[in-house]
Order: sequence, then C-alpha cells, then structure tokens
Amino acid sequence: MSKEVVTIGIVKLGCVGTSPLLEFLLDERADRGDIKVRVSGCGAKMTEDEAADAAKVIAELKPDFAIVVSPNAALPGPKKARDALIEAGIPVIVISDGPAKKAVEELEAKGAGYIIVPADSMIGARREFLDPVEMAAFNSDVIRVLALTGVYNVIYESIDKVIESIKRGEKPELPRIILDAEKATEAAGFSNPYARAKAMAAFEMAASVAKLTTAACFKIKEWERYTMVAAAAHEIMRYAAKLADEAREIEKYGDTVTRRPHSRKGEVLKKKRLIEKPSRG
Amino acid sequence: MSKEVVTIGIVKLGCVGTSPLLEFLLDERADRGDIKVRVSGCGAKMTEDEAADAAKVIAELKPDFAIVVSPNAALPGPKKARDALIEAGIPVIVISDGPAKKAVEELEAKGAGYIIVPADSMIGARREFLDPVEMAAFNSDVIRVLALTGVYNVIYESIDKVIESIKRGEKPELPRIILDAEKATEAAGFSNPYARAKAMAAFEMAASVAKLTTAACFKIKEWERYTMVAAAAHEIMRYAAKLADEAREIEKYGDTVTRRPHSRKGEVLKKKRLIEKPSRG
Amino acid sequence: MSKEVVTIGIVKLGCVGTSPLLEFLLDERADRGDIKVRVSGCGAKMTEDEAADAAKVIAELKPDFAIVVSPNAALPGPKKARDALIEAGIPVIVISDGPAKKAVEELEAKGAGYIIVPADSMIGARREFLDPVEMAAFNSDVIRVLALTGVYNVIYESIDKVIESIKRGEKPELPRIILDAEKATEAAGFSNPYARAKAMAAFEMAASVAKLTTAACFKIKEWERYTMVAAAAHEIMRYAAKLADEAREIEKYGDTVTRRPHSRKGEVLKKKRLIEKPSRG
Amino acid sequence: MSKEVVTIGIVKLGCVGTSPLLEFLLDERADRGDIKVRVSGCGAKMTEDEAADAAKVIAELKPDFAIVVSPNAALPGPKKARDALIEAGIPVIVISDGPAKKAVEELEAKGAGYIIVPADSMIGARREFLDPVEMAAFNSDVIRVLALTGVYNVIYESIDKVIESIKRGEKPELPRIILDAEKATEAAGFSNPYARAKAMAAFEMAASVAKLTTAACFKIKEWERYTMVAAAAHEIMRYAAKLADEAREIEKYGDTVTRRPHSRKGEVLKKKRLIEKPSRG
Amino acid sequence: MSKEVVTIGIVKLGCVGTSPLLEFLLDERADRGDIKVRVSGCGAKMTEDEAADAAKVIAELKPDFAIVVSPNAALPGPKKARDALIEAGIPVIVISDGPAKKAVEELEAKGAGYIIVPADSMIGARREFLDPVEMAAFNSDVIRVLALTGVYNVIYESIDKVIESIKRGEKPELPRIILDAEKATEAAGFSNPYARAKAMAAFEMAASVAKLTTAACFKIKEWERYTMVAAAAHEIMRYAAKLADEAREIEKYGDTVTRRPHSRKGEVLKKKRLIEKPSRG
Amino acid sequence: MSKEVVTIGIVKLGCVGTSPLLEFLLDERADRGDIKVRVSGCGAKMTEDEAADAAKVIAELKPDFAIVVSPNAALPGPKKARDALIEAGIPVIVISDGPAKKAVEELEAKGAGYIIVPADSMIGARREFLDPVEMAAFNSDVIRVLALTGVYNVIYESIDKVIESIKRGEKPELPRIILDAEKATEAAGFSNPYARAKAMAAFEMAASVAKLTTAACFKIKEWERYTMVAAAAHEIMRYAAKLADEAREIEKYGDTVTRRPHSRKGEVLKKKRLIEKPSRG
Repeated sequence: MSKEVVTIGIVKLGCVGTSPLLEFLLDERADRGDIKVRVSGCGAKMTEDEAADAAKVIAELKPDFAIVVSPNAALPGPKKARDALIEAGIPVIVISDGPAKKAVEELEAKGAGYIIVPADSMIGARREFLDPVEMAAFNSDVIRVLALTGVYNVIYESIDKVIESIKRGEKPELPRIILDAEKATEAAGFSNPYARAKAMAAFEMAASVAKLTTAACFKIKEWERYTMVAAAAHEIMRYAAKLADEAREIEKYGDTVTRRPHSRKGEVLKKKRLIEKPSRG
Repeated sequence: MSKEVVTIGIVKLGCVGTSPLLEFLLDERADRGDIKVRVSGCGAKMTEDEAADAAKVIAELKPDFAIVVSPNAALPGPKKARDALIEAGIPVIVISDGPAKKAVEELEAKGAGYIIVPADSMIGARREFLDPVEMAAFNSDVIRVLALTGVYNVIYESIDKVIESIKRGEKPELPRIILDAEKATEAAGFSNPYARAKAMAAFEMAASVAKLTTAACFKIKEWERYTMVAAAAHEIMRYAAKLADEAREIEKYGDTVTRRPHSRKGEVLKKKRLIEKPSRG
Repeated sequence: MSKEVVTIGIVKLGCVGTSPLLEFLLDERADRGDIKVRVSGCGAKMTEDEAADAAKVIAELKPDFAIVVSPNAALPGPKKARDALIEAGIPVIVISDGPAKKAVEELEAKGAGYIIVPADSMIGARREFLDPVEMAAFNSDVIRVLALTGVYNVIYESIDKVIESIKRGEKPELPRIILDAEKATEAAGFSNPYARAKAMAAFEMAASVAKLTTAACFKIKEWERYTMVAAAAHEIMRYAAKLADEAREIEKYGDTVTRRPHSRKGEVLKKKRLIEKPSRG
Repeated sequence: MSKEVVTIGIVKLGCVGTSPLLEFLLDERADRGDIKVRVSGCGAKMTEDEAADAAKVIAELKPDFAIVVSPNAALPGPKKARDALIEAGIPVIVISDGPAKKAVEELEAKGAGYIIVPADSMIGARREFLDPVEMAAFNSDVIRVLALTGVYNVIYESIDKVIESIKRGEKPELPRIILDAEKATEAAGFSNPYARAKAMAAFEMAASVAKLTTAACFKIKEWERYTMVAAAAHEIMRYAAKLADEAREIEKYGDTVTRRPHSRKGEVLKKKRLIEKPSRG
Repeated sequence: MSKEVVTIGIVKLGCVGTSPLLEFLLDERADRGDIKVRVSGCGAKMTEDEAADAAKVIAELKPDFAIVVSPNAALPGPKKARDALIEAGIPVIVISDGPAKKAVEELEAKGAGYIIVPADSMIGARREFLDPVEMAAFNSDVIRVLALTGVYNVIYESIDKVIESIKRGEKPELPRIILDAEKATEAAGFSNPYARAKAMAAFEMAASVAKLTTAACFKIKEWERYTMVAAAAHEIMRYAAKLADEAREIEKYGDTVTRRPHSRKGEVLKKKRLIEKPSRG
Repeated sequence: MSKEVVTIGIVKLGCVGTSPLLEFLLDERADRGDIKVRVSGCGAKMTEDEAADAAKVIAELKPDFAIVVSPNAALPGPKKARDALIEAGIPVIVISDGPAKKAVEELEAKGAGYIIVPADSMIGARREFLDPVEMAAFNSDVIRVLALTGVYNVIYESIDKVIESIKRGEKPELPRIILDAEKATEAAGFSNPYARAKAMAAFEMAASVAKLTTAACFKIKEWERYTMVAAAAHEIMRYAAKLADEAREIEKYGDTVTRRPHSRKGEVLKKKRLIEKPSRG
C-alpha cells in the first residue's frame, strides 16, 4: 500500500557528528511534503533508562521507520533503545561511529539497518580540556568534515531510498554501510580528483582522531598528559575540517560543486554549476 | 523545596544555530548528576500542528522548566509550542534569532524568558543553492561563530543559573537577553583585546548575513539573482567563522583560552592556561 | 566641436577609498594622449573655506569637466566646492560614500552627476585607535575591496564615457549611479560565479563597516568601548579585503581575469587570458 | 617668529606608494589645528610642463615648506617642479623611490631635503598586464608594505619635526634619509623581534620587485615574456604585503601594536596596548 | 683514551626523512672542530649488494662509530650493511622508520643502538603518482614535520651524547629510542602548550600517512584507486607540515623559539629569545 | 659501445638545496634498472682535504660520469674534488649555487658540465640564529622552492640525457646551464600562466635571499643586527616556499599538474591529469 506521507522517528542518544543536523538533512529547506519527522532525545547521557525513555516516545508514535543515532551503538543504552523499537515492529536504522562495528552482527541478526562512520571520532572528553565551547568548536569541525567528504550524502540518500520504498508500498531494504574514505567521497560527487584526494585525506585524518581521544579519555591517567593528547586530537580535527573545506573550494573554483537538493516531493535533484537549475538527471 | 535533580524539557522547532547542540552545552561530557534532559522535535518544519505535537511530549513530562528553540519566535508555530507549556504551568525560556525581537513584549507579558541572538542569521534557503550539504556547511560555520564569540557562554550560563535557582528551591528568574556583539564577547572572557575585537567583528558579520538571506529568500524573484545573493551570504558566514576562529587562536597563542567546564555537580568551573586544573574561582 | 585633449579637474576633499588613486584610474600607465588631468586638494580637512580654496584652483583652470571626491557629499564643504564649479559652468561629477545619498536630489536638480559607493565605509577615526599607520592599513584594505569588486571599473568606465562624449563634441551625459554589490560585481566581469559571489560578499562586508565606525565615532562615548568597536570595524574591512582578493585569485586560477586597460587613445580595451593581447572586443 | 599654523604645499607627480595617502599621514583624523595643507597634482603624467603647472599652484600659495613626491626624482619633470619651488624660496622635501638616489647630490647642493624609499618599487606598467584594477591592487599592496614596515612612520615623523621647527620659529632642518629595512622597521616600533624580522623581509621583497618591473618595462621586448615577468613582480609585492600584515598581526597577538596618533596640537603621541590612552611618553 | 676528533661514518640506504640532512644536523654551520664525518650511499636502491658496497667504504674508514639510516631496517639490505660494520667492531646506530620496530630485538642482541621514527611514513611510490618533483615535495614536508616536532632534536642530541662519550674516552652508550609524539615534542622544548599540542598532532598525522601509503603501494591493485589513495596520503603530510609550521610560528609569536646550536667545540648551547646569545645553560 | 647499466658517482660537499635529494631525483621509486648510483660525502665541511677524500672514493669506483654538488664551486674544496675526478678521466658535472658563476670559465676549459642555481641561496649561518632545527626548516623551504619551480626538472632531465647518451655508447654532451626563473619554470611545465608567474616570483624571492644571508654572514659585525637580518632572510625563503606551493596548488585545482616519472628503463614519461597513465608522449 503506497503512502503519501512517511513518518520517521529519530531517537538521539548522546552526541556524534551525524546527530545534530540529522533531521535537517532530510528536508533542508523545510518544504518537503512527503515526510513527517519526530525527534526524541535525552541529552548527553545515554544510560539504559534514558535511552528507553527516549525510544518510548517514538515507539508510541508508530512511525514507518526509526533511526537511532548515538556513539558506540554496541553500548547497553543504544541497544535498549533499538530493541524497544524493533520489538514494536518498527524498522530501525542505526547510525553510529567506529566502535559500533562490534554491533554489526547483532544488528544484522535483528534485521536492523546501519550506517557506521569511522571518521566520526569521539571528542576529547576530559574536564581539564572540554568545556561547552570546546565541545561546540569540535562539533563544528566534525560536521564540516562529514558534510564535505560525502558522509552526509550517504546518510540522506540512503534514508531517502527507504522513504521511497515505503512511499511505493514496499518493504524497505535497510542500508548496511560501514563507510570509508572511498565510499564517502564517491557519494560526494567530486569533479576534480585533487578535491577528492583532499576529502579522502580529511576523512582519514578525522578517523585517526579517535586513536588519540580514546587514549586521552580511557588510557592515560596523568591529567597533564591526557590534556595535551586531547588538545592534539582536536587540532587534527580542526585541520581535517580545513582540508575538507579546501576540497570544496576547489570545486567552487572550477564551478563544479555538486548540489543535490530535495524537491518538494522528496526527490533528490542534481546540479553542478552555480547558475543552473537542479534537475532530476 | 530544594532539588537534587532538575528536569529540563527542550522543544526544538526548525533549525537555528543555537539549536543543534543546545542540550550538550549543559552537560558537555555527559557526567553531570544534577540534571535530566529530554528533547522533543519535529524536524525542519514548524507549523502549528507540528509544534503542538512536539510541545505535548514535553508538557506531559512536567519538567522543572522548558526551553523552546526555533527561528523567529514570533511565528505561530513557536508561539503555539510555548503557550502550551506556559499553560501547563511550566516556566519557559525561548531561544531564537533576530526576528524574534517582535515577540519580546508578548514573552514578557506571559512571564517567559528569552535569549535572542541576532548573529544567528537565517540560511540561504533556495532550492537552486541549498542542498543538505550546503545546509550543514552553513550550520558548521554558524555554530563556530556562536561558540567562539561567546553566544553559547551566555546561553549555558543563563540556563545554569535557572538550574541553580531550582536546585535551591527558589522560583527561577528567567533570562531576558537580546545579545549583541559586546555582551557576547564579554561572556567569552577574552584576554587579548584584539581577539575580542575580531570576535565582535565575526558576530557583526554573522548578523549582517540575514540582510542578504532574507533578500534572497523573500524579496528577489529572479532565480539567477537570488542564487548569487544566497551564495554571497554564505561566503560572509564562512568568513565570520574564520575570523571567530582567528580570535580563539590568538588566545591559544597567548595560552589564555578561557574554559568553563561543568563539574559533576553542575558548577561552572574556570581555567585559563591549558595545563591547569579548572577551579571554582 | 570635437576635442583631441580633454581637460579634467579633480577636487579632493578629505579621504575616501575612491579618492587616493582616482586620477590614476584614468591613465594607469601614464601613456594616454587624450586627457590632461589637474588635481587640487586640501588634505584631511574639508571645511567650507578649505573646499572653496581647493575648488578655486580647478575653476580657474576651466576644465572640460570636474570631479569632486569627498566623504559625505551632503556636508557644507563638498557642497561649497561643487557649487563653485557649477557656477563657473563646469560640468561636475560627485564621487562620495553612503551618506551622500542625502545629496542626490540636490545634485540632480543642479545637473551634477554622481557615483555613490556604499562599500566605501568611513574609518574608525578615534585617537585611541587611529594613527597614520592604522589609517593607511585601512585604506589599503578599502582600495583592495573597491578595486577587486568592480567599483573602480564603474568609476573609470563612467568617466571615460564622459571623456568620449566631449571628444566627440557632445554635451556629456553625467553618470548617476548609486552602486550596490550586484552592479559593482557585474562591472568587474567575473567569469566564475563563486568569484562573483565572494566579491559581492566582500562589498557587503565593506558596506557594513560603516554601521560600526559611525557608532564608534559619533554614538559611543566611553573610550574603552568605542576603541573596541573601531577595532572590530577595521577587522571586518580587513576580511573584506581578503575575500575580495580570494575572488580575484579564483579568476587567476581559471586564467579568466578580466583586464580592461586603456589604449594610448583612451579606448578601454579588453582581455581575459594572461597571455593574450588586449583588443577592442 | 613662531607660528600657530604651518602651511604645507604638496606637489604630486605621477604615482608612487608614498604619494596617495601622504597628506592624510599628517592629519589622520582631520582634527589637527596647527597645519594647513594644499595639494596640487597633474595625474599620471610627469613631463616638465605638467610638473611646472602643478608646482606653480603651490609656489603661488607661498607655503612654509613644500613636498614634491614622485617616482624617480632624477627625471626632468620632478626636477622642474622642485626647482620652481626652491627658486621661490620655499624649503622643499623630495619624497621618491629608489632611482632617486641619483639626484641626492643635486638635492643636497640645493639645500633640499629628501626621503628615498627603495621598497617603493615601480609598477609593472605594460598594457598587456596593467589595467586600472591591477594598478590599484598593486598600490593597495605597496601601501600596506610601506605602512606596516615603518616607512610611513619615518615620513610623517620627519615632516612633523619640520613642522615643529617652523612653529617654534626656527629654520627647519630638512630630512635627508635613504631608507632601508633596518631604519624603517626601527621606526615602526616593533616589540616582537620576529615581527620585525618579517617586516624587514617584506621591505626587502618589496624592494626586489623593481628588478623585475624595470626588466619588464624597459628591457624585455617580447610581449609574452614581459607580461609574465610583470605578473611575477606583482605576485612578489602581494606576498610582501601578506608578510607585512603578518608582522602586524604578531603585534596584535601580543597586544603590543605601537600607535602614534597626532594630538589636536600636532604632537605625536604614543601607545602600545589597545585599551590604553595615548600619551606624550 | 680521550679523543679530540671523533670520526663518524654514515651509511645511507634508500630515502627516509631522517636521512637527507642527517650529517648537517651534527654540524649545522660547518664550524665544529671535534668531528669528522664521512657519508657513503647507494642511491634509491637498497639491495644486499648495494648496501654491502656502501657499508664497505665506511668499514674501511674505521670510524669511532657508524650510523646506518634507511627505511625499514628489518630488510636484508640494511641488515647486511650494519652486520658488516658490527663485524668490523664498529659501534652502530640504526636510524629508521616505523617498520623497523621488527628489528629491535635483533639490534639489541647485537649491541646496536637505534632511533625509530614512526612519523617518518613511507612515500606514495606509484609511477602514476610519484615523479621526482612529487618525491621532493613530499620530502620537504616530511623534513619540516620531523624538524619542527622535535624528532631531529632527539636524533642529534642522542648522537652528540655518543660523541661526547668517545671524546671522554668512554665506551659510548648507544641510544635505544622508539619515538612517539610525546617524546619528540618534549625534546623540541616548546614553551606554549598549544604549540606542543599542534606539534603532537602533526607528528600523529605524519605517522598516520603510512597506513595509506602502504595500502597504495602494496595492497590496492587497481591503478585509479591507488593513485587516489597515494594522493590523499601526500595531502595529509602536506597538512602535517603546515600544522608543524604553525606550532613553530606560535613560538615565534611569543619570542620563545628554543634554539640549540652547536658551539665550535660541539657543545649543545641553548637560547629562547631571538635577540639573545646562546649559552651553556 | 652501448651500456645496459650506467654507473654514476656523486660527491657531496657541504649543503645546498640541490644536494640532499639529488640521487633520488634520478630514481624516485627505486625501481630503475639502468643506473647504479654511489654517493660519497664528507658532511658539512668542504676543505680541500675533506673534498679530496670524498672524491677519492668515487674516483676509485670509475663511474661512467660523476656529479660534484656543493655550495660555491669556485672554492678550493670543490675544485680539488672535481679536478681529481677529471684527472681520472671521469666526465664531471658540477651542480652549485650563485657564487659558482665565477668558476664557469674554468669549468668549460676543463670540459666539465655545470648546472648553476641562483635561487639556491645560502643559509643564515650565524650561531645566534642557526641551530640544526632552523637549518632543516630552511632546507625544507629551499627544497620546496627548487622542486616546485622547475629547478629539479632541469637537473634530472639534464642528467638523464647524459645517461641516455652513455647507454647509446655516445660521448655525452654535458649540461652547461645557469638557471634563471624563466628557464626553470619552463621546465616545470605549468599549464596556468598565473601558476608560472607565481613560480617565477618564488624563484626570484629565493634568489634574493642570498643578498641578506651574505650580509648577515660576512658583512655585518654586530650580533644583534646580523641575527635580525638572518631571520629576515629565512622569512623570505619561507614565503618563497609558500608561493611555490600556491603555484602547484593552482595546477592541482585545474587538474593539470605535470608529472614526469621515470619508467623502469629510465625513460622520462609524462602525464597531466591525476587519473591518467603516464606515457612516452
């Protein structure tokens, strides 16, 4: 049975770079008529209780499908949230970062979809270093890297395919994607190969941040040392953002920026030159 | 009656630069024991129906206070959401952008608090220009400007005061702030006056973007023209972000970055040198 | 009666960004045979007495037409200067900044031409901030913005048309132009649309500086505050210059810089590729 | 006999980097009560006739002293202008660029003062390359280099000494200065030695431009070759400006920018920190 | 028996970032009287035959100690070279990159010293990408990273200790160091903690390049893919060099660059401010 | 008699920018089957004794030809080295910096080849300024300039021609080249004329460094002064490297980077687009 409007429930647990703008990736100008989105979150914490609460709001909504976005989807909180939704018969897509790879087998067994983004490295979460401003600056960098290297393209185009299936009355095939630099940058649609090389480099740099932040957060005990390592990690992310930005500037310089806006009907259109109408092409 | 844990409900309608990371500003490392946060949103759209739905989830939660964050708080959707909460007896703080100034009188009449951020200019929302990637890149820039010019400091420290009042069992005095470049940068705690001047400049540049984006979105009819104007607007925001970043780098170069992390108990601590413990100071 | 050599008198009162290089815009390599230029100025001040003195030198010269360039052409000094010239029967073109808009009606009534450049914002003229070096650095930035966003193209091509009319023995039609970002950048002849968008952004940023400098110079009384605001204003102009420069670099990167040199006969030639002869095209 | 107001006549012939803003260096905020300035120029050309005309205006004014600013003061035009002034009994200061060194002996013999600035290299004046926009962009760079490396400090402080002498009723000792990187940067008052080293480097780079532009303008005959060399020369000046700017930024980063504004009475005041009152110190 | 002049033999096999300038690190101004250096190399190749040839020249010289610098010291060629030297009774220090860790046990068993530098990642050695110019550009970046993050400090100060021992007539204790970001940046002597954080970040970025280059050189078979990955890898190294450079600039901005020149007698002196004499301190 | 493998002896005396990577320019991926390279050096010093020692190793090898690379080939040390080789009947190519021009006549008389690189300016060799890290940073910059402006292209392609001659059994014609900005950048194969202009500018800037470093090393006696001048000189080289890098980025932005890798057989192949196979073209 085909549908005119697809309802999407989003559960946000904790913070990863794919989370803050997720719902807006699906409807970037708030003019799309074919979807209805509801978001439920529990802030920074992601214990089982918090996660259950946040999921319950969405489960009661009975959306056509749900997305659970969180750091490390292998943790009990995210698991609790998605299990509640799966048990309620709602198709679930998990979006998470590198450590979520441990949950892949389980997710497949339960029929869930997933998009795992290794470039979405954890933050340097130490009190001596991380205050709200540093947290926001880091997320600004992560968002830039994910946006400009193609990660967000993969995410919204994957979800759009699910929406399309549901609109056509089909059982949607949920995405099962572990992103890497090649896949992400392919989705970004670069025209200049050096732009793509720089974007791949930015993706890899962003992914390498996790090595330092996990050391700073979990392994190093001396506060002077972990503060330095956390600071170093954020400098890498800052440069990854700069490099991703340079990649996009190359495409501007050649007037070849790929833009894939949604139409009002939810189709993904496409254009390359700035002064050009987007088309179904 | 004093409280150990304060419950905060956040209603997110549409997207402004203060919205995507709002809940994480209050608990940047997810280790704070004195607050419980619930978020309810309805994605990019903010019609009255959507807003009412999103507010209902929070109203039922009966939080100690609620925050409604949206573009242009003077629109019917945001109004609907806050009225529902106010009617349910919940203290409400509105966080919004420049056009919200029109709602100030009404907000004060109803006893609501507000934080209005003129630098949080609207996006260049034209299909020929704005796709999800451009949307995310713009928000990355806005977040950087707001974070590094002190806007986020004002927001979280204002909300923290409300939380403290409630913890002490007092009726909270809600913030009533229309931010400008001077107030924001004062809150940021710059040590170097050129850093502050650059941050003020970044704030003003960000605020001036709205002139172009409102023209592009609402006044100019020819698509080639509004596409150019929207593109120009985003270039200004990109440079505002660069300049805000330069302001922060100056403070790094002097080892005088102000950091104000939360303690586990929710106090706002303070430090200046990187290798230094934060203190109550 | 056609003319071989047109005499142009320029009266410079005070300093705006269109003033310091004005005469050289007309004959950039000092090899043009069809014009004779005389300049008369009275330095930084622009009282009625000073202005009258400066104008008198030009009036006595009886040039084919005169240009009066100054800040705020609505002030008594600039008015005095142009009135003296108009009364002497000399066609006058006024070049000035944003506040000159107030003089437009009067100028038209008197048959004068005008080119008004809102991007040519006033300087942060406070003793605590502005010394000769800061003044020069600001003007370096303003000149860059005006040159690279197309303002100077509009100016010299408008004046060249007047010269051509006089050479042909016609009564010249004087320019009446209030510049904006679109007109200026159209005149600049950008090939890459992102270059033009960045130039438009630079123009708007430069224009927005006046808001801060007028506040710093005329509204804010506390010296610590106006010093900060003046400093912030100059930082915006510095970034506007950077952005205008980036716009030109894009054209260099594509080998599409538009160059419109004068021939010895005063024609405006044109070329795009660096290794290419200019032509009448 | 002491004087309250000193009259200064400025003759501008052709264009060098010390010329466009010269009068404003003496009275950067147009509030100085002790000087009266008159400027006379003849545009880009500097033949003997043009120069004589421009000088005549100033000679008739009978100023307390005159300044003749031009490229290559050893050429007949500039010589004509200063001789006319000297013969009229007016003390003359010549400001010029590197090739003017050839005129030093003559200048001293005639009792004239001089300030020669080797960093003020000639422009790449070839029609295939230089149009009015390129001319202005180059001058923007030159002005930045001269301003930020201390050249303008030497100029206005030297002239201010002459003014002071005349105010005290003394016969002024005219400056006789051939600037080099060390003298200029000493005058700039850098606090950070790397800032000074960068400024010296910028000065030297700017001075080295003349080698290429004189080759491009006078030695190389093939247009493809001289166009490339002229373009290369302007790229060096562009980088010299960037490096001079970096020098100033270092001082901003340390809050040690030396500012030496004029008081209303024409004294050169001094300050270092941004939020600090200038003083006679 | 103490010595006045110590003879050092250096065998260079293939190219790593520690190799091209190695001998000059020991005598940066060619004025040191206490050492005599001989270098023997066999170009890019490092087969057993080539290595044996190069080592033979040094073995015959009978130096006080020898250094063998090469990529991957675990390969047969480098092994051959050092074994020849060890068998000749010459103390040997091996300098190599990350893969050399596999040789550590063997080196210790044979009494050799070693300095292993993981940041010294291999180059993207694919014909479709790497030509001599790209090779040199990459090495320029690697040298910058190693120099500015402290790696070269560790190397020359370790070798200087060996030289000192030999001069005192002692049996030298050979260095056994596997460098990491913390050790390297400690040796660099940063004063500003953000400078050190940036240098650590640069070191880590440089080290992460090997992941991509080994994939490009040994794992990926399709030429379009490995060309892209090699290009991405070099972009990371380019940004690591930029970041290392930024770290040094911070120290310049604070006038705190640590300099440790050799005296004529080979002592390592020290200074911090630019205008300051180095001292034994 | 044609040869399959050509033996090349390289004598390295002291350090110039053409020296550290010389052997790798000939075989950038260590996969070339047609050459055998031996390198002999004596570290930073280049007295006659040192030079003779280093040359002896190569002379005994009896290579098909030899290269002697050193600063100022007119000095006794380099002369000694090449004379020893020439007397042994070995064809010699001298590679050196600007001062080597004095040796040209002698070199031609003795039948030697030469490549002289004026952009390869001497270092600021003063103990108060130059330590090993500064030395390496300077060389990183020099290498970048030489690589990206085409100097290395001229070097390796000239040597490759000699190798080819020898392989064909011919008496090789040795290169006799004094490089300038035009020749170097022509060899670099730029597609964009602004890229070439920037590279020419970088070459000239690098060449101009010698003026300052020779002053700092040999003329100025006061240590505070020569330290400043040496520092200024290195800042110029740093900016020359930046500008050379910008030139290459332009070519990346247009996907027109010229790459000329060696084939296994030692042919110089060519390609322009990144994703393209190199060919004999």
